[in-house]
Amino acid sequence: MDWTTEIKAAAGRIAGHIQITPVMQTLGFDLGYPIEMKLEHMQHTGSFKARGAFNTLLSQDVPAAGLVAASGGNHGAAVGYAAHQLGHKARIYVPEMAGPAKIALIRNTGADLQVVSGAYANALEQAQAYEQDTGAGQVHAYDAPGTVAGQGTCFAEWQDQGLAADTVIIAVGGGGLIAGAMAWFQGAKKIIAVEPETSCALHAALAAGAPVDVEVSGVAANALGARRIGSICFDLAQQQRQAGHLTSLTVTDAAITAAQTALWRKRRLLVEPAGATALAALISGAYQPAAGERVAVLLCGGNIAPDPLA
Amino acid sequence: MDWTTEIKAAAGRIAGHIQITPVMQTLGFDLGYPIEMKLEHMQHTGSFKARGAFNTLLSQDVPAAGLVAASGGNHGAAVGYAAHQLGHKARIYVPEMAGPAKIALIRNTGADLQVVSGAYANALEQAQAYEQDTGAGQVHAYDAPGTVAGQGTCFAEWQDQGLAADTVIIAVGGGGLIAGAMAWFQGAKKIIAVEPETSCALHAALAAGAPVDVEVSGVAANALGARRIGSICFDLAQQQRQAGHLTSLTVTDAAITAAQTALWRKRRLLVEPAGATALAALISGAYQPAAGERVAVLLCGGNIAPDPLA
Repeated sequence: MDWTTEIKAAAGRIAGHIQITPVMQTLGFDLGYPIEMKLEHMQHTGSFKARGAFNTLLSQDVPAAGLVAASGGNHGAAVGYAAHQLGHKARIYVPEMAGPAKIALIRNTGADLQVVSGAYANALEQAQAYEQDTGAGQVHAYDAPGTVAGQGTCFAEWQDQGLAADTVIIAVGGGGLIAGAMAWFQGAKKIIAVEPETSCALHAALAAGAPVDVEVSGVAANALGARRIGSICFDLAQQQRQAGHLTSLTVTDAAITAAQTALWRKRRLLVEPAGATALAALISGAYQPAAGERVAVLLCGGNIAPDPLA
Repeated sequence: MDWTTEIKAAAGRIAGHIQITPVMQTLGFDLGYPIEMKLEHMQHTGSFKARGAFNTLLSQDVPAAGLVAASGGNHGAAVGYAAHQLGHKARIYVPEMAGPAKIALIRNTGADLQVVSGAYANALEQAQAYEQDTGAGQVHAYDAPGTVAGQGTCFAEWQDQGLAADTVIIAVGGGGLIAGAMAWFQGAKKIIAVEPETSCALHAALAAGAPVDVEVSGVAANALGARRIGSICFDLAQQQRQAGHLTSLTVTDAAITAAQTALWRKRRLLVEPAGATALAALISGAYQPAAGERVAVLLCGGNIAPDPLA
């Protein structure tokens, strides 16, 4: 696949629908070196996922029955928002255990929200039944070319904004975002994939040589807790790791919480644990840049619970 | 005073000590027109006040006894932080009623913090006694040329970052920040001064033709609740209003809270009420731009209470 062409096409398609998110450079985390940050948690619905959702909806026919998704959070909100903005119906099945903050987030997008008792599997089952009954379309959360190309626009945008770093540090859940980064940079930047120790589908897949199921838990699990890495991400990651362009590492939940606290206390950036996971690799020392190596950190999600103004 | 020269000198002096804060353009508040925003609440200690504090400390000799200030919040934190960074002692007297979030903010700067029972007046009394006993220097919160020139660097920086707006909307407390804006733009931009109905020292002064004491209360009072507008601000404001460059208006507490909620819900920007007061003028309709008028909003403070991660 010609990812450069796909991502440029996606950027043109979603322009005007997504928020161009701010970038900054800061010395403010007592690391002894500056870092560049992109504040992608300020994207519509509070995460990068709006990019993939808009790209998918704008690059294919949407059935008259609209869209359907099962989600405990950011993906469901993004699909709900994009569908509403583009005049499509969207039914989102959310498990009760997602909690009131994420449920309110999805409801506020204007989606037809169905709260399902129990866990994610129950919501997914009902979403699949709805798809079969009505012909509604599904947007894959991370393992589809349209999704990956949409997330890749985040990095094309950052480059347009003057990204100077040698190394870009990104949190990984199902792998859609980092696949977009690998697809866009094609080795022009070193990429650091950061996962919680407690939810590390990419790290486990690279160790095993193939995607494998992992247990997921911990503070960032509601955003990064994919049980199995997406195949598009895995293929790109295996190739780029062999070429020396990708490093995969993990951080503890305590490191994630410390980074989340530092973002708020030092920069008034309030993000969810997933949004602090990339920075956690620097603050904890899990990743130590070489002398003179310029690093950049993506803040990917801001949907903290509980809502601080609720 | 040659403000352009003063502000350029201040910018050179404080470079490297302050955070260059990000800017963005957004359509995301359902206003029907885009707005530019500068995220100055991401400044060190969570408000623009670090600029004036660094400029003051770096442009004069600091006594061996260090600095002293009485403050219920943002100014005290800024003085404490700047003093600590520059190797000076700072004693900050804070009234007990400032509350645990602002007290912790000041303590975390490394200042010698003295919590005083009662209200601001008690803290000020003790700060003045300390000044007399020790010879420690005071940094005025808003009504000193060094403070105004420091705050003016915020607008010089914004212009360097490509500020395109015709009109810049700014919240007003004691007037140091908006004085910096008037001093920098010198009529090149229209400025909208926004105050809470419940704390409107500038609005009252312009109506009376001279600074007058006002009652202060309401959701933003702990940051915007100056009893009397600073004389530097008043003189600039009277002159620029006569020249048609300045408009003074007020907003309700409900409008401030609605803007604060919109910033969080739509953009994941968590600011204190004062930080949302400028945007409140647009969302409430208190200021309605003309067709084609391009507007910019400064977010000036992010020290919300209670601390959302406490």
